[in-house]
Amino acid sequence: MTTQPPDASSSRVEALTEPPADPATDPMGDSDYRLAVVDLLGALAYGELTAFERLADDASFAPSIADKAALAAMAVAEYNHFSLIRSRLEELGTGPEEAMEPFMPALEAFHERTAPRDWLEGLVKAYVGDGIATDFYREISAYLDDSTRDLVLRVLEDTGHSAFAVDRVRAAIEADPRLAGRLALWGRRLVGEALSQAQRVAAERDALAALLVGGVAHRGADLAEVGRMFARLTENHTRRMASLGLSA
Amino acid sequence: MTTQPPDASSSRVEALTEPPADPATDPMGDSDYRLAVVDLLGALAYGELTAFERLADDASFAPSIADKAALAAMAVAEYNHFSLIRSRLEELGTGPEEAMEPFMPALEAFHERTAPRDWLEGLVKAYVGDGIATDFYREISAYLDDSTRDLVLRVLEDTGHSAFAVDRVRAAIEADPRLAGRLALWGRRLVGEALSQAQRVAAERDALAALLVGGVAHRGADLAEVGRMFARLTENHTRRMASLGLSA
Repeated sequence: MTTQPPDASSSRVEALTEPPADPATDPMGDSDYRLAVVDLLGALAYGELTAFERLADDASFAPSIADKAALAAMAVAEYNHFSLIRSRLEELGTGPEEAMEPFMPALEAFHERTAPRDWLEGLVKAYVGDGIATDFYREISAYLDDSTRDLVLRVLEDTGHSAFAVDRVRAAIEADPRLAGRLALWGRRLVGEALSQAQRVAAERDALAALLVGGVAHRGADLAEVGRMFARLTENHTRRMASLGLSA
Repeated sequence: MTTQPPDASSSRVEALTEPPADPATDPMGDSDYRLAVVDLLGALAYGELTAFERLADDASFAPSIADKAALAAMAVAEYNHFSLIRSRLEELGTGPEEAMEPFMPALEAFHERTAPRDWLEGLVKAYVGDGIATDFYREISAYLDDSTRDLVLRVLEDTGHSAFAVDRVRAAIEADPRLAGRLALWGRRLVGEALSQAQRVAAERDALAALLVGGVAHRGADLAEVGRMFARLTENHTRRMASLGLSA
């Protein structure tokens, strides 16, 4: 026979100090939603870690020590973002590596297929690639609980490389207008590869896809809204290319 | 005719608020010593910036996400050290890029000639290369004013990669003892390249060389002491190789 606790109310006290997962009050109580958030944070964390690596890598192309140091500073900002998300994953009781692992193949494939050949390609990639990723996460953040949304918006804050990239790329094109054709082509290739890897992730990660299209407790958008979202992402991309002095 | 100031004592008051460079009270008042310190900090700053790049680069070889994140954290620590030295160079009224520039060729040549081909070569390089550099700067710090010495010792603090590298390299050699031969050879090549670049710097930078061998206000060592210093550097290198399980 199992022994009953001498006072049944003591177990209720414990339950109060660590409340049961109730989807009505604790969004993480909904296990599908929790899975989707862990996926989202895992993808974002690995994205920041590879952004760190990529910016540090691109620093080797820098034409001056000051440019090298500027890129290194941006890489460090990405690492600090990564570190914030990793802490949140740990708070959620999830192994950060476990959460990031599913997104390694898509992110590594993206970076392998879009390795910049020079300083300018690196800057265009940082600006255009991060721009699309940031827009996408901002759109998704509308369907998140307050605490997760605050974290996501915080790590998406511009680390200053947008203005830096726009300034350097515009100056280079002004100095040599023939660069515009090659860099415009490069921008299109970046978007194509980003979309193809995003589709791969959406096909493989049900919870994450459901968060986007309303499957998780009807938080997400309907399909018409997803269509409008993609239209917005495309418009923003075109606007970014224009600000570099390039056609999309 | 030049006009005399109406009250000669007013210029003395200015001189008191910004005291004249007096070698007896302000070590930077000695222009040779100041040049040597700017050289030393410039070399150290560019060394930290390239250490950042190299560790970030080596992160791409990491066998797991946790290892990748560990190397990224070390790279960030190197960047923070770089940032500290850059601030000090600015305080000294020197353009940090100008101070670093003379050391680019030697440091870039060293890294080009010792690009690791895999994760283990990267770890051995980080441990052995940084070990020699740290020993060397510590030796030189004995001839510095208090304030510069404090900064130098602070940026030389181990960022945790020694223990990490020793742990990983020992485990790899235990798992596959045949690795020991290749990695021991690699260690010897690293020392050879480091010494050859150090000689290049010593030949080109008079003030820095003088700081070491006592030419600057007799702060430095005599030649016999330099000989003993090199003996200590070599002993420490042998000890480090042994702690990796390798012969020097």
